[in-house]
Amino acid sequence: MREDLPGLKEIEAAADRIAGVASRTPLVESPSLSRLTGHEVYLKLECFQPVRVFKIRGAYNKVSRLRQSRVVAASSGNHGLAVAYSSRLLSKKCTVVIPENAVVEKVNTMAEYGAEVVKAGRYSSEREAVAKKIAEATGAAFIHPFNDPDVIAGQGTCGLEITHQLDDIDAVLVPVGGGGLISGVSTALKAVQPKTKVYGVEPEAAPKLTESLRAKRVITVSSPASVADGLIPSALGDLTYKVCSRKVDGSFMVSEDDILRATRTMIREAGIIAEPSGAAPLAPLLSGPSRPIGRRVVLVVSGGNISHDLLLKMLQSPLSKERYP
Amino acid sequence: MREDLPGLKEIEAAADRIAGVASRTPLVESPSLSRLTGHEVYLKLECFQPVRVFKIRGAYNKVSRLRQSRVVAASSGNHGLAVAYSSRLLSKKCTVVIPENAVVEKVNTMAEYGAEVVKAGRYSSEREAVAKKIAEATGAAFIHPFNDPDVIAGQGTCGLEITHQLDDIDAVLVPVGGGGLISGVSTALKAVQPKTKVYGVEPEAAPKLTESLRAKRVITVSSPASVADGLIPSALGDLTYKVCSRKVDGSFMVSEDDILRATRTMIREAGIIAEPSGAAPLAPLLSGPSRPIGRRVVLVVSGGNISHDLLLKMLQSPLSKERYP
Repeated sequence: MREDLPGLKEIEAAADRIAGVASRTPLVESPSLSRLTGHEVYLKLECFQPVRVFKIRGAYNKVSRLRQSRVVAASSGNHGLAVAYSSRLLSKKCTVVIPENAVVEKVNTMAEYGAEVVKAGRYSSEREAVAKKIAEATGAAFIHPFNDPDVIAGQGTCGLEITHQLDDIDAVLVPVGGGGLISGVSTALKAVQPKTKVYGVEPEAAPKLTESLRAKRVITVSSPASVADGLIPSALGDLTYKVCSRKVDGSFMVSEDDILRATRTMIREAGIIAEPSGAAPLAPLLSGPSRPIGRRVVLVVSGGNISHDLLLKMLQSPLSKERYP
Repeated sequence: MREDLPGLKEIEAAADRIAGVASRTPLVESPSLSRLTGHEVYLKLECFQPVRVFKIRGAYNKVSRLRQSRVVAASSGNHGLAVAYSSRLLSKKCTVVIPENAVVEKVNTMAEYGAEVVKAGRYSSEREAVAKKIAEATGAAFIHPFNDPDVIAGQGTCGLEITHQLDDIDAVLVPVGGGGLISGVSTALKAVQPKTKVYGVEPEAAPKLTESLRAKRVITVSSPASVADGLIPSALGDLTYKVCSRKVDGSFMVSEDDILRATRTMIREAGIIAEPSGAAPLAPLLSGPSRPIGRRVVLVVSGGNISHDLLLKMLQSPLSKERYP
């Protein structure tokens, strides 16, 4: 089955395919975060992608390779935005199945991109079932958010860029939802800078990667929940698990408080508007990591789609009480 | 006197000198601002410099060329931060003369960088007099914030980077305080992409550049004031005026409301935390510019040192009432 997994060649092909659509995002040092944490902290700013999230990389790579003229996705947010945006650029008809309680701004943006939006249920399993039914009925291609070689290869372009932008990286910290991003990033890093460690960061209440690495098989966690709403699939996919089990060096579990503190710190110390999922990789550096991480660290700030209310809250809460290691 | 003015050669030398200290900042397209304004909007993100402002470029270029082991600067903020930061890196003793009502955070940061901070008066003329006295008494070099060929050449590296990062630029919009940044940027642009227009943006209540270009000599404005606190010197210098009169294609005056709207929009639509001075170049695109600007536009987002209180205000005020052309 090894041949299913995308390698450097597939990632390089994806990079050619998405050029001009997804951005080569900046990798910048944050002197204030370096000072604060004692590491040399670099930020890979996926929050500057079109649709403000890395998912455009995988979605566009996937959608651009389809014969079908219709696509359908199940998503509570960022994946749907990325598929809708890619579909518009590629003149495909797009349907996104979203939860009944979806964020209004995201729904509106998907509609602006010309996607048909269908509301169904509160759980991702329900939405996925509805999306697959639509796919069967209409002949549309179902676009999985992470468990797909073309999606993984697309996300890998983020890692490929990092290898072009910085040498001698000790560790790359990547937020983990379904594992698409860390699968792509770790594949690229291990191929080009094999000494660099790649770690996942995930909520304590959604420890898919940590438990799966420990059990050496895909573990489904029950009732995953987090303010980091991009990191709460209940399990990795079989493909993303396979990649992670081979390429990822370990994982950090972070509490909800840690994630919120990281979000506040990212905004107020580094001046970067990140969503909680995107700020999560900073959390292990703030709380005193459970294992040595190394000096030169890249944090993949995966997205910037924070709600206006949460952004306000992050600015209103006291920062002076923060403790750093 | 032409030989006083830095050219491309001096800017390239400055780029070598500041490499590894100042950042080669990202130039990113903002799809949301492009959609909003009808232009193709690119942002040159000087808010990602160390000390979060472009001034590190000129300050480091200047301080690194001095024989003296002591420097002194008069500043209400960003220039002082940049000189203090540069002095620490170059192991020079640094004194910054600041206003009695200076922002606490900035004062603390200067002190963290090892600078001696002296409070004197509320007006820049008073502070400059005190700083020059200190220079005479101690043998320290006085570092002017803008009217200095080495400072201008340093700021020019921002323009040089833009020419490497993007082709076919129709216009670059640059905020104007004392004119150091626009002098450097326009010198670089006109040398490498001479068809690109370079425009200044300044507050209506501090129209130094507009009035000087009109009168064809340095005009001192009375009681300059603005929420864009980096843009309120009362006059260009003789050097920066000379450069602007030769290289700058025009200027836009923007109201206080325009500047605040640009700041809100930069934060909430583009996801970039800019200070008002740094957001000001967006203002002409939002209010319907008084002259055609062209399709592909670069805005120099000169800095991100916004106070916490103002940032909160920017998020709390309604955005839905904004009107765009």
